[in-house]
Amino acid sequence: MSDSLSTVSDKLGMPPGALVHVGNVHEAVTRLFVVDYTSEYANEHSIQSIDELRQYRNSSSITWVIIEGLTDVGVVEDVGKMFDIHPLVLEDILNTHQRPKFEEYDDYLFIVLKCLMPEKGEFSVNYEQISLLVLRNVVLMFKEKTDDLFNPLLKQLRNSKGRLRSSGSDYLTYSVLDNIVDQGFLLIDALDETVILVESDVYDNPTPATLNQIQRLKREMINVRRNMSPVREMLAAMLRSESPLIHEQTYLYLRDVSDHSLRVIESVESYRDILSGLLEIYISSISNKMNEVMKVLTVFASIFIPLTFLAGIYGMNFEYMPELHWKWAYPALWVAFITIPAVLLVYFKKKKWL
Amino acid sequence: MSDSLSTVSDKLGMPPGALVHVGNVHEAVTRLFVVDYTSEYANEHSIQSIDELRQYRNSSSITWVIIEGLTDVGVVEDVGKMFDIHPLVLEDILNTHQRPKFEEYDDYLFIVLKCLMPEKGEFSVNYEQISLLVLRNVVLMFKEKTDDLFNPLLKQLRNSKGRLRSSGSDYLTYSVLDNIVDQGFLLIDALDETVILVESDVYDNPTPATLNQIQRLKREMINVRRNMSPVREMLAAMLRSESPLIHEQTYLYLRDVSDHSLRVIESVESYRDILSGLLEIYISSISNKMNEVMKVLTVFASIFIPLTFLAGIYGMNFEYMPELHWKWAYPALWVAFITIPAVLLVYFKKKKWL
Amino acid sequence: MSDSLSTVSDKLGMPPGALVHVGNVHEAVTRLFVVDYTSEYANEHSIQSIDELRQYRNSSSITWVIIEGLTDVGVVEDVGKMFDIHPLVLEDILNTHQRPKFEEYDDYLFIVLKCLMPEKGEFSVNYEQISLLVLRNVVLMFKEKTDDLFNPLLKQLRNSKGRLRSSGSDYLTYSVLDNIVDQGFLLIDALDETVILVESDVYDNPTPATLNQIQRLKREMINVRRNMSPVREMLAAMLRSESPLIHEQTYLYLRDVSDHSLRVIESVESYRDILSGLLEIYISSISNKMNEVMKVLTVFASIFIPLTFLAGIYGMNFEYMPELHWKWAYPALWVAFITIPAVLLVYFKKKKWL
Amino acid sequence: MSDSLSTVSDKLGMPPGALVHVGNVHEAVTRLFVVDYTSEYANEHSIQSIDELRQYRNSSSITWVIIEGLTDVGVVEDVGKMFDIHPLVLEDILNTHQRPKFEEYDDYLFIVLKCLMPEKGEFSVNYEQISLLVLRNVVLMFKEKTDDLFNPLLKQLRNSKGRLRSSGSDYLTYSVLDNIVDQGFLLIDALDETVILVESDVYDNPTPATLNQIQRLKREMINVRRNMSPVREMLAAMLRSESPLIHEQTYLYLRDVSDHSLRVIESVESYRDILSGLLEIYISSISNKMNEVMKVLTVFASIFIPLTFLAGIYGMNFEYMPELHWKWAYPALWVAFITIPAVLLVYFKKKKWL
Amino acid sequence: MSDSLSTVSDKLGMPPGALVHVGNVHEAVTRLFVVDYTSEYANEHSIQSIDELRQYRNSSSITWVIIEGLTDVGVVEDVGKMFDIHPLVLEDILNTHQRPKFEEYDDYLFIVLKCLMPEKGEFSVNYEQISLLVLRNVVLMFKEKTDDLFNPLLKQLRNSKGRLRSSGSDYLTYSVLDNIVDQGFLLIDALDETVILVESDVYDNPTPATLNQIQRLKREMINVRRNMSPVREMLAAMLRSESPLIHEQTYLYLRDVSDHSLRVIESVESYRDILSGLLEIYISSISNKMNEVMKVLTVFASIFIPLTFLAGIYGMNFEYMPELHWKWAYPALWVAFITIPAVLLVYFKKKKWL
Repeated sequence: MSDSLSTVSDKLGMPPGALVHVGNVHEAVTRLFVVDYTSEYANEHSIQSIDELRQYRNSSSITWVIIEGLTDVGVVEDVGKMFDIHPLVLEDILNTHQRPKFEEYDDYLFIVLKCLMPEKGEFSVNYEQISLLVLRNVVLMFKEKTDDLFNPLLKQLRNSKGRLRSSGSDYLTYSVLDNIVDQGFLLIDALDETVILVESDVYDNPTPATLNQIQRLKREMINVRRNMSPVREMLAAMLRSESPLIHEQTYLYLRDVSDHSLRVIESVESYRDILSGLLEIYISSISNKMNEVMKVLTVFASIFIPLTFLAGIYGMNFEYMPELHWKWAYPALWVAFITIPAVLLVYFKKKKWL
Repeated sequence: MSDSLSTVSDKLGMPPGALVHVGNVHEAVTRLFVVDYTSEYANEHSIQSIDELRQYRNSSSITWVIIEGLTDVGVVEDVGKMFDIHPLVLEDILNTHQRPKFEEYDDYLFIVLKCLMPEKGEFSVNYEQISLLVLRNVVLMFKEKTDDLFNPLLKQLRNSKGRLRSSGSDYLTYSVLDNIVDQGFLLIDALDETVILVESDVYDNPTPATLNQIQRLKREMINVRRNMSPVREMLAAMLRSESPLIHEQTYLYLRDVSDHSLRVIESVESYRDILSGLLEIYISSISNKMNEVMKVLTVFASIFIPLTFLAGIYGMNFEYMPELHWKWAYPALWVAFITIPAVLLVYFKKKKWL
Repeated sequence: MSDSLSTVSDKLGMPPGALVHVGNVHEAVTRLFVVDYTSEYANEHSIQSIDELRQYRNSSSITWVIIEGLTDVGVVEDVGKMFDIHPLVLEDILNTHQRPKFEEYDDYLFIVLKCLMPEKGEFSVNYEQISLLVLRNVVLMFKEKTDDLFNPLLKQLRNSKGRLRSSGSDYLTYSVLDNIVDQGFLLIDALDETVILVESDVYDNPTPATLNQIQRLKREMINVRRNMSPVREMLAAMLRSESPLIHEQTYLYLRDVSDHSLRVIESVESYRDILSGLLEIYISSISNKMNEVMKVLTVFASIFIPLTFLAGIYGMNFEYMPELHWKWAYPALWVAFITIPAVLLVYFKKKKWL
Repeated sequence: MSDSLSTVSDKLGMPPGALVHVGNVHEAVTRLFVVDYTSEYANEHSIQSIDELRQYRNSSSITWVIIEGLTDVGVVEDVGKMFDIHPLVLEDILNTHQRPKFEEYDDYLFIVLKCLMPEKGEFSVNYEQISLLVLRNVVLMFKEKTDDLFNPLLKQLRNSKGRLRSSGSDYLTYSVLDNIVDQGFLLIDALDETVILVESDVYDNPTPATLNQIQRLKREMINVRRNMSPVREMLAAMLRSESPLIHEQTYLYLRDVSDHSLRVIESVESYRDILSGLLEIYISSISNKMNEVMKVLTVFASIFIPLTFLAGIYGMNFEYMPELHWKWAYPALWVAFITIPAVLLVYFKKKKWL
Repeated sequence: MSDSLSTVSDKLGMPPGALVHVGNVHEAVTRLFVVDYTSEYANEHSIQSIDELRQYRNSSSITWVIIEGLTDVGVVEDVGKMFDIHPLVLEDILNTHQRPKFEEYDDYLFIVLKCLMPEKGEFSVNYEQISLLVLRNVVLMFKEKTDDLFNPLLKQLRNSKGRLRSSGSDYLTYSVLDNIVDQGFLLIDALDETVILVESDVYDNPTPATLNQIQRLKREMINVRRNMSPVREMLAAMLRSESPLIHEQTYLYLRDVSDHSLRVIESVESYRDILSGLLEIYISSISNKMNEVMKVLTVFASIFIPLTFLAGIYGMNFEYMPELHWKWAYPALWVAFITIPAVLLVYFKKKKWL
């Protein structure tokens, strides 16, 4: 599903900080899931309300709260109250048309970005906005949809020996970002396959459908770039920030994610150039086909038009046309009927029209 | 109504600071409206002259003065005298061809920007220049037209519990800017609908009118970008300024408006790319249609020209043409008349011309 | 008259600082005109030689020296001697192919820029290089041509109440720059009118002349941008400079000129985009016209070629052609002659070729 | 072999630092080769395992370890353990889809870049990722493939008088980088030859194959630029770094490599412009050929169609056609049959169609 | 002679600092020429070997050494030894594929740039690399070719009153740079003349040769820009440098050269835009010509095809065709033969096809 550029504007005129969900409704129900872990243990369980998080607020364990679905505005409000989050942040979480950004507050970091996944089947991009509130020991993650995007991380958390289990909320944040950015590589892989198909179409059998396909891909690239480019700025802002919430050694990992995002962006740019090239080939091959059509017409017309004229001459009814009475006139004409096309065909052959 | 690029140049040669209204006259009468509020009360009333503002100048309440229509130069002059505004600022307020900008003076801030609203009916953009003079407790707002753009803010002010009522002139300024920038989202929505219509035209039934429509939209995008891009710079200048007139906590809100303006600008850029893509499809589909025309001509001509030649042969009046006297010559020719087109049709079918 | 990109290179090989006039000769005679003013009085008079300026050099009044025509190298030399100007500056004044620039010397400022005015009649741009030497109490202005460009300023100077009369040489400099930059708005107005005409030509009656017109305007825009863009940098350099020759309060005015130059540059950029759009429409409409021609040909040929073939059949002279002897054969053929075109016309109508 | 944009994504979901080889397998076996040298001696030998490097770790001689083939993850792991390398670095070494980069760690420098070599035969680019770990006295180099890329360096090392023998690990690093960047010049040479061939094709005999060739080269240029541009940034980062591992005098040499990389990048950019120009010529020459085809058709049709009509007139069977009985009618018609084409040919000649 | 993008790569694999001449051999013999001057005297003479320079090394006079031809590597080696020049600098002097650059060493400055001169005859650019080693009292200049490029400077040096004679090595350097950059203006003049010719061709008589000419000029512009743009950076680096070898007052002169280089670069950019415009006109005029051809064909075919059909009808041999026996049938048909074309011609006239 392509991300519409249209931005739902129902909220216009409301005071800032008014909590209303803006965006497509992907999940009717909001589901809350908690993973609480230290290097010793890792507990996973669903919860019913934000109130159940109270115990984790000041515990020394790391708590990862996954909130899927954004329709229940109350959940976001409760999060705001319990963790003392600025109303503008809560508003941004609920509005799923955010530009990726990183904001540093006194007690927490706010990160919002889009996860771009390839759809199964025909190539198209699935956009999901993911917001992160990073506190000292708690990471709150808001997702639009229910999917298994973070299963690999859950698996790592179950493994007591992983680095993730023994690190803080900043490293968990890094892992989440890494997981999201790396979806971009899957996207590039899917794109690559599609481009190869389109390319062989353009060369072998260009149709208007091929053109539409190229344009559709170009437009997807416009959207992907619009959503990926700010990720680079966002990560640069994180790397520049000197927040006490991010440990020294985590910066190396964030730099790594930043490199990955750069590679994804550069690949997208390359594919834009390649698609523009395909469009040029498409247009050239349309011209080439027109040329071919014109040549067929010209060859047919140029050969038969003079012959028809010749035949027309001897179809005239003049009284005094001596040729009409010659015995070999008719066969002689047949010689002309065969010689003229032969000469013309040689001429066209030389011009490489045949 | 599209904003003409033409700049009225009647004022050339006048000394700077000369107060003359430059721009289209939208309102014949200048109307003044005042909202005076504290967290306790909020009074709205019209006034006749700027002199009536004297009481609010040093009061501790926040006073929002809305001046609609710019034809009465005297009003602007009076504002200049009462609040000691620099003549260049007054001149800028009256000239409605300003670039959006932010200027910091000792006792006040000057902000000028364009509000871009979609017209009803066919897509076009309505431009209105709005200037703000932000003093300690007074915000003077100059509008070109009478409209209900700020009704949502008035509604918020009537509500005693809103954050707006309990904040200063800087927060009011923020609210005004937010209201203006958010009109951009409405514009994008309207644009999106129009582009979808144009797109289906380009694919299904491209006419010169479609081309004009694409060009008109592209030109609107040029104008919108020219008026929106400086808004980003303007807000960046506000965020950088360390004016005592803007409270610490208001910067967060201004950053939010800045994000919104960025989203609008990026959407506009995306639509420019999309419109360029549509133009390419248009041109390609014109070529495709020409191809189709050429194929029809070629098929018709290539089939009938040889047949006509054949018929022409046996229309000749030679004395010695043995075939003319054969009994089965005529039916045999009919076989040729049917076989030749059949072969050619198969050939054209194979070339995918049919 | 379009500004030739060609740069007269007669001076190559001369030592730097050699004073030779480089450029087109617009005025055979160099005319010197002096306005000397304080808030009390304003005297205007012509002078014959630079020597007559000696009295103004150290007087407390402000002296504006207008030098029209650059052919008399001696005048520039005398100015150099009297006011102790660097030889490179004198050289730059005489060479009318300068890039707009601002240079700060110990005792004076040097400003050179182009004044761009629309020619009367058909749209074209008139370029005039204007150099300013700004001293404490004297402003020396060098113009290529004799025209009434600065009449509005002279008028202001005659008015004892204007701000200009009571300000220093920096404000006079500002007024001159403002006057020059504002000519850009006149240019944009003239351009706008021309573009509207070209636009209606492109839509209604595109001819090769229209194409040439578009290209001519595009090229004018290239030149205008080349001469206007550095003005922005020049003004930025002035705003950054902390020269004691520019008073604190004058910076506000210079910032205003800078804003104006920005608006002119952005308008020029917009017109470049618009002209590129017109070129695309032109090319598309040429294709459309070709399509129309092809359709006419195809319709004519497709209708008559089969009919001619039919007529050809019954023009054959076979002995055994039973149809020839049928009574209703000829009328029946006429039915075919009418039915076939009718069917084809319906077919072409359905294809929207008619 | 062109570098696929596709990035193998098998590793997604693994924790960071997990050592898995990502990329095409070029060498089944990992080969280790050591050159140990001082100004006195230079020993070259193969080793079986990283353990054999222990003796060189703290020796005062310079040790260059060349590791060819990346499939044996154990080798990289052993390197990590012995030299205490950050797991992310080891991961980067194994993933052959890296962006060129330079990273500074406490005890070592990490450099990764692509070596771009022209393939033999038809023009295409061979990409090999080369990673360098630069320690005080040891340089570990990881290569994807077995080739003789560094033979010139080995030859220099055997020569006891070369500067290389008497310098440290930083100078060896410079030599390696210089060797890699200079491959770019070979690439440009190969490209230049290919472009000259394509160019003569475009002018003399443009076929769809020529178009494909242009597009293929353009795409190679996109890839080359994507891999070369970051090299400039990488070298700039090295020049900015104040690592104690790089001696003062080595910076001059690095600056020289940086200049070389810039020259390669600028050449690539120039070739992109040139290829775009060739594409324009290609499209123009297709149009020119179409024009030629159309002219032939038009000349043939315009000459014979009127003649055929004339002949048709006198093929009519009206009873009362006096011309049919005139003696000189037939010869007179032949005069027309010769005059009309002659006149038309002169006309077409004048129009430069022949 | 256009500067090939190809870079001779014979030197690959050699250690850095290895002195080998890389580039085309323009002069078989290396010629050395010395000008030694103070404000008192100026001596010019040829020398045979670098050893003869020993006396000038520490003299207080300024010595300008001109070395023409780079094939004698020994000369460059001797210069290196006598003046203690870094081997990389010597290598750069010998390699004539350098990017223009400025490098500051402890005791000398190294400057390398290209002199771009127009060839006589058809427009093409002559590239000559010129390297300068600027010491306290000596300027060593290395040129590829023997030409009279610096005659104007020699003439100035012979004049005892010129500023050049009384200034130091930095002013001589400036004079050399100024002389080189000003060749750019000659180039622009030659280019301007050529563009005017091409332009009139495009409008009046576009042929494929015109297209090639445009492409050739575009490619020259690509090369010129590639060689001129870095000159700007180079001069900026000189202006930033605070080398004791450059006197305070010389910076003003260098700034002047920098302005000139900027003007040349901007002119080149403008010509690139103009050439792109010409290409668009070329393509449009090809389309226009095709349109014209098509119209001629359509007019001929549309007029004669219906007439031929009419004639064909009455060439049929039906027994019962009453018209054949009417007395006025034949003249009536002639009326049709004249009326139908007349009507069609009026129709085509109205469509502006004639």
